[in-house]
Amino acid sequence: MYFLLKFAPLFLAVSVCHGWLFGDFVGKQKEVDEISLWPLPQKFQSSAVAFKLSPARFLIVHAKESSAGPGCSLLENAFRRYFEYVFGELKKHEKSRKKAFDSDLVELKVWITAADPECDGYPSLQTDESYELSVDSPSAVLKAANVWGALRGLETFSQLVYEDDYGVNNINKTVISDFPRFAHRGILLDSSRHFLPLKVILANLEAMAMNKFNVFHWHIVDDPSFPYISRTFPELSQKGAYHPFTHVYTPSDVKMVIEFARMRGIRVIPEFDTPGHTQSWGNGIKDLLTPCYSGSTPSGTFGPVNPILNSSYEFMAQFFKEISTVFPDAYIHLGGDEVDFSCWKSNPDVRKFMEQQGFGTDYSKLESFYIQRLLDIVAATKKGYMVWQEVFDNGVKLKDDTVVEVWMGNKMEEELQNVTGAGFTTILSAPWYLDYISYGQDWQRYYKVEPLSFPGTDAQKKLVIGGEACLWGEYVDATNLTPRLWPRASAVAERLWSDKSVTDVSKAYDRLTKHRCRMVKRGIPAEPLFVGHCRHEYNGL
Amino acid sequence: MYFLLKFAPLFLAVSVCHGWLFGDFVGKQKEVDEISLWPLPQKFQSSAVAFKLSPARFLIVHAKESSAGPGCSLLENAFRRYFEYVFGELKKHEKSRKKAFDSDLVELKVWITAADPECDGYPSLQTDESYELSVDSPSAVLKAANVWGALRGLETFSQLVYEDDYGVNNINKTVISDFPRFAHRGILLDSSRHFLPLKVILANLEAMAMNKFNVFHWHIVDDPSFPYISRTFPELSQKGAYHPFTHVYTPSDVKMVIEFARMRGIRVIPEFDTPGHTQSWGNGIKDLLTPCYSGSTPSGTFGPVNPILNSSYEFMAQFFKEISTVFPDAYIHLGGDEVDFSCWKSNPDVRKFMEQQGFGTDYSKLESFYIQRLLDIVAATKKGYMVWQEVFDNGVKLKDDTVVEVWMGNKMEEELQNVTGAGFTTILSAPWYLDYISYGQDWQRYYKVEPLSFPGTDAQKKLVIGGEACLWGEYVDATNLTPRLWPRASAVAERLWSDKSVTDVSKAYDRLTKHRCRMVKRGIPAEPLFVGHCRHEYNGL
Repeated sequence: MYFLLKFAPLFLAVSVCHGWLFGDFVGKQKEVDEISLWPLPQKFQSSAVAFKLSPARFLIVHAKESSAGPGCSLLENAFRRYFEYVFGELKKHEKSRKKAFDSDLVELKVWITAADPECDGYPSLQTDESYELSVDSPSAVLKAANVWGALRGLETFSQLVYEDDYGVNNINKTVISDFPRFAHRGILLDSSRHFLPLKVILANLEAMAMNKFNVFHWHIVDDPSFPYISRTFPELSQKGAYHPFTHVYTPSDVKMVIEFARMRGIRVIPEFDTPGHTQSWGNGIKDLLTPCYSGSTPSGTFGPVNPILNSSYEFMAQFFKEISTVFPDAYIHLGGDEVDFSCWKSNPDVRKFMEQQGFGTDYSKLESFYIQRLLDIVAATKKGYMVWQEVFDNGVKLKDDTVVEVWMGNKMEEELQNVTGAGFTTILSAPWYLDYISYGQDWQRYYKVEPLSFPGTDAQKKLVIGGEACLWGEYVDATNLTPRLWPRASAVAERLWSDKSVTDVSKAYDRLTKHRCRMVKRGIPAEPLFVGHCRHEYNGL
Repeated sequence: MYFLLKFAPLFLAVSVCHGWLFGDFVGKQKEVDEISLWPLPQKFQSSAVAFKLSPARFLIVHAKESSAGPGCSLLENAFRRYFEYVFGELKKHEKSRKKAFDSDLVELKVWITAADPECDGYPSLQTDESYELSVDSPSAVLKAANVWGALRGLETFSQLVYEDDYGVNNINKTVISDFPRFAHRGILLDSSRHFLPLKVILANLEAMAMNKFNVFHWHIVDDPSFPYISRTFPELSQKGAYHPFTHVYTPSDVKMVIEFARMRGIRVIPEFDTPGHTQSWGNGIKDLLTPCYSGSTPSGTFGPVNPILNSSYEFMAQFFKEISTVFPDAYIHLGGDEVDFSCWKSNPDVRKFMEQQGFGTDYSKLESFYIQRLLDIVAATKKGYMVWQEVFDNGVKLKDDTVVEVWMGNKMEEELQNVTGAGFTTILSAPWYLDYISYGQDWQRYYKVEPLSFPGTDAQKKLVIGGEACLWGEYVDATNLTPRLWPRASAVAERLWSDKSVTDVSKAYDRLTKHRCRMVKRGIPAEPLFVGHCRHEYNGL
C-alpha cells in the first residue's frame, strides 16, 4: 500500500511535448471548474481536449479482452448505476442511425485483467483496488485486475463528466492511474443507541461508494438495544430490541445490507462488543450478565458479561458460530472497550473467582481472562478479529492478524507506536469521531490528520492499514444521520485514499464543495460546507 | 400578557372533591405516559377518566353558538389537518349506524365567541391567542375569542390524544385554560446564505404551529444572494440571486408562504437589512452601494448602501412601497446591524459629505443619518418597523412602536435594561442563535434562559414582548435545516409560551422526547434528544 508512484522525470518530459499537464487540470477554466475529483487520484493527467457524451449513444461495456462479461451482475449493476448518475433520468437509449462525431466519447470499456474477475466474491483486506483509466475518443478504457478496482474507476469516471453551458455532458482527455494509500477505509454506524432503518444504512453505503470507502463497521448492538435477530437466540432481539418487529434487522435485512455493500466493494464488519456494552443482551439470555450486589444482596442491576460461568462461554461459542456464517467478511469486531469493573467488584462470587485465579484485585486481569477465552472461541470459527485498543493495552495475547483499533484521543501517537511496535496491524479512529460536532468547518480538522505522523520505523508505519470515521448514535437517527455524516466523512475518505502530499485545504474546499453538490444531486442530503448553492438543490425535506 | 392565572384556592378545593388533580396528570400511569403537552399550558386539570375516539364517528365541528361556520376556510383547513394528525391515514368517515358508547368522545366543538372570528384576517402582535378547552363525554368544547386562539387549542387537543394498547385513540377528561406568556414567539430563517426551497419553509411553518410559534422572521436577502423577486426592481433577483429561475421566490411563492403561515396563525415579517449586508443588491441596482477606494482610485469593490446619494433614498422609497403591499403584517424588519465603516472611510465623496454634515469622523452618525431617513420612508408606508439593536445603540430616533431586537450575547441584560428603559418594546434573540451547534443537549441551555431576569421595573419588563430562535444560514440548507432546528427550537417555544415557573429540565426532557416523536410521526425530521426510539421512526432519508 505504501509505494508512491511519483512522476518519473522522463514521463514528464514526454508529456509536456504532447500538451499534457500533470497533477492539475488545464484547459478552458470554465469547464475545468466543473470537475472535482474526490478523493483525488494518485496520478492523473488531463488536457483541454473535451469529448461529448450523448445519452442516446454512450454505453458502458465490457472490453473484449475482459475476463468479465454480461454474466457479471456486480458490474452490470454498476454500469447501470453510473450511467444513471451521469445522465440522470434520461434512461432511454436509442441506437442512433447517425454516426457518432469524432468529438464524441461513445463508450467506456471496462477491462478486467485477472483470470478471476471476482464477480461473485467479496472484497477483503487484501483486495487490489487499483485501476487505470484512459479517456480518449472514441473510447475510454478502464483497466483493473478485478471488479473491485473497476468499481473505484467507475466512480472516478463519473466524477470526470461535467455539463457544459448547453447542458451537454463533456469529459476531457484524461489518463489516471490510481490506488488507495490505505487498505481499510471505514465508516462506523451505531444501530443500537438509535435504530437505523434499512433505508438509512443503504443510503449511506451509496454515499460511502461515492467516497471510495470500503468498510462498513456495523456497531449493530450495544447497551440500549439489540436489533440483530439471531436465529440461534431469537430472545436476544425479542427482548432486547426497542421493538421486536419494527426495530430489528431480520436475517434478510442483514443479507441485503451485505449484498448492497458487496455490489459497491464494501466489506461489512459487524461488531458484537463484549463483555461491556451488553445491557441489552441480558434481557434475552438468563445469567449472561454479572448480577451486581449492593452490600451482601443482589441489587437487581447487572454488569458486564459474567466471566466466571462456563455458560457464558458456551453461549458465546454458539452465538459467534452463527455470526461467523451470517457475515462473510474474514473479520469480526469483538469490541472489548470501556469495561466497568464496579459490578464485578461488588459480586462476592466474582471476588472469590479472582482469588482462586490469583488475580488479586486487578480486574483488568479478569477482563483479559474473558477476552482471551472469547478470542479463542472466535478463532475456532476461522475468523480474524478486530478489537478496541483496551484489549491490547491490557496485555491480552492476540493472533498475529488481529487488527487493533485506536480510538482514544489522548496519547494516540504513543498508542500507535506501541501497537505497531508489538507487531500488530492497527486502524485509527481517534481523530475521526464525527458524533462530536462543533460550529464551523470541522471537516478541515479531520482532513489535516496525518495517520503516520507518530514516531516509528517504516515497518511500524506499514502496520497502520487505515482508519475509520465513527458516528456514534447518541444524538443521531434517521432524521439527521446522513447530513451529519456527509460531507464531513469525505474529509476522512480523501485522507485515507489519496497521496500523503494531498494536504491543501483551500483546494480541498473547492473540490469538496462540488463533490458535496454531486452527492446532493445523486440524492444524498450532504450538508453544505459553507455559504453558497448547488445547481441541483436537495429535493427531499 | 403578564397576568398569570394562578390556581385560586377555592377552585382547587372544589376540584379535589371531584377527583381532579392540577398541574400534572394522574390516572393510569401507562396511558398518562403517552401524553406530552408542549409547550405546557398555563393551567390544566386532567383526570383518570378516559374516552375513546373512533375515526368513523369522531368529528371536529363548529359549535352552534360559534360566530364561525363552514365558510371559515381557515378553520375548515385546521379541522382537517388536526383530524389527520390524530387519525393518520384513516380518512374515511362512515356515519356509523351504531350509537356511540357513553365512553366515547364523539366531537370537538369549536366555539368562536367574538362577533368577528377573523377567518380571513391576519394574526398580529395584538392577537388574543388564549383559549379554553374542556374534554368530557360526549363532547369536547374549545372556546376562543377568534380563530387564532382556536388554532392553539386545536394543537393542544391533538396533543392530548394518545393510543392505548389496542391502538385505539383515547383522551382523558381534561380542562385547560391557556394563553401565551409572550406575544412575539419567532423563528428566523435565512434564505440568502443558502436558498431554502419553498418546501423547506412550509415544513418549518408546520413545525412552528406544532410548537405554538407565531412569527416567521424571514431574513430573505443578505450579502450572498437576493432571492426575492421584486416586481418594481426585477434586476435585483435577476442579477442578485444564485440563479434567476431556480433560486428565487416568485410573487406567488411569497403569497403561498404568507397564506400557509396565516392558516397556522403565524405572522410573516420580512427582513430587508440595510445599509450593510447588501452586497447582493448591488448587482442589480447601479450606484446603490458605496464604491470603495484603494488610495485615490475606486478599488472595484463595494460597501454598504451609499448614504450620500438621493438616488439611494428614492430607490428605498419605491422598494419599500412594494414590500409594504406584498407583506400584510404591520411590521417590516429593517435590519441595521453590523455596518462596516471601512469602505465609507475609504471613499473621498463620503468623507466630504461627513465634513459637510459636521459628523467629524464618527461614522455611526452617518449610519444613523441613513437609517433615520429610511425609517421615515418606511413610516410613510404606514408600517411599523423592527430593527437590530445597533440602531437603538447608535441613538437613532425611533417611532414609539418600534421593536428593537437584542441579539448580542455580551451585556445582553444591560441592553434589555437600556432599551426598555428608553420605553421601547424589545424582543430577545441573543441566547437563541441556534446556528451555533455543540455536542450534547444544548436545548437545555436555551430552555433555562429567563428573558425577564434583567434588572428593571415592572413597566420595563412588560416591554419585552417575546423572543426569536435564529437559524442563520452559513451552514444550513435543505439538507440539514429541519433536524437542526427541531426540537432545539421547541425549548424556546416553551420558554416563550408557558408560565415562568415551568423550569424543570428533567420533566421537560420527558415531555420533549415525546413531543419530538410526535413531530417525527407528523413528518417533521426532528432530531433525537438522546438515546432512545420513537414508535414511528422517520420515514424519509
